[in-house]
Amino acid sequence: MSQTTIETTTEPTIRYNDQGLVPAIVQDVDSGDVLMMAWMNEAAVRSTLETRKATFYSRSRDKMWVKGESSGHVQEVQEMRLDCDQDTILLRVKAHGPACHAGYKSCFYRNWNGETDRLDVVEKKVFDPNDVYKS
Amino acid sequence: MSQTTIETTTEPTIRYNDQGLVPAIVQDVDSGDVLMMAWMNEAAVRSTLETRKATFYSRSRDKMWVKGESSGHVQEVQEMRLDCDQDTILLRVKAHGPACHAGYKSCFYRNWNGETDRLDVVEKKVFDPNDVYKS
Repeated sequence: MSQTTIETTTEPTIRYNDQGLVPAIVQDVDSGDVLMMAWMNEAAVRSTLETRKATFYSRSRDKMWVKGESSGHVQEVQEMRLDCDQDTILLRVKAHGPACHAGYKSCFYRNWNGETDRLDVVEKKVFDPNDVYKS
Repeated sequence: MSQTTIETTTEPTIRYNDQGLVPAIVQDVDSGDVLMMAWMNEAAVRSTLETRKATFYSRSRDKMWVKGESSGHVQEVQEMRLDCDQDTILLRVKAHGPACHAGYKSCFYRNWNGETDRLDVVEKKVFDPNDVYKS
């Protein structure tokens, strides 16, 4: 399929990378906050479409995982958007709890300060990971 | 650096992939819209921090590019956030014009409809690419 066709087609034609994965950005539909980025394989894409629960593929654990399966912080998918190139996904979700295992609503809780060249924490911690992820 | 240290340090420690690249999500600070995703190498990260203009690395053209260098649609970087793992960047920008070369404000102009299994165009076209990218 040509580049122009990929941009205009109504047929989903995801271009997975050479590992069979595609990056998926997760955005909270209510606040507009960008919550996290994770990877999906084709099975995770299909599962997300069917269950409407954000489902990813873990490269380190080599398996599919449903967001919230340990924490209960599931992400209910309202929209699954594709970009012009069809090589990036944007999930617009109702977030049932914070997205970040480090205790923040969003994984993007640090800002790189160009003047100090350090990271400033710009979000509030909303839970203690030790309480949520019990061993 | 351990996983916990990466999550809590104030030291920027970007974990580039095996091609020396890191994905960068671009969000409009005013509307909250997710505009696009592109890749950065270390030079593009440094250039973005210094010039405050979103700068990426093109894998197909094998060179750095400043967003808006052809179209004039530059992205003025207000914040450059890192995620917990320090392997994804979120640029929060003032967008001087639409982000997508296909003519939309955001590259994510199509929604994958789970019922029809087709892509629905959910954004309005705001310019004709032929007028902006003259040969």
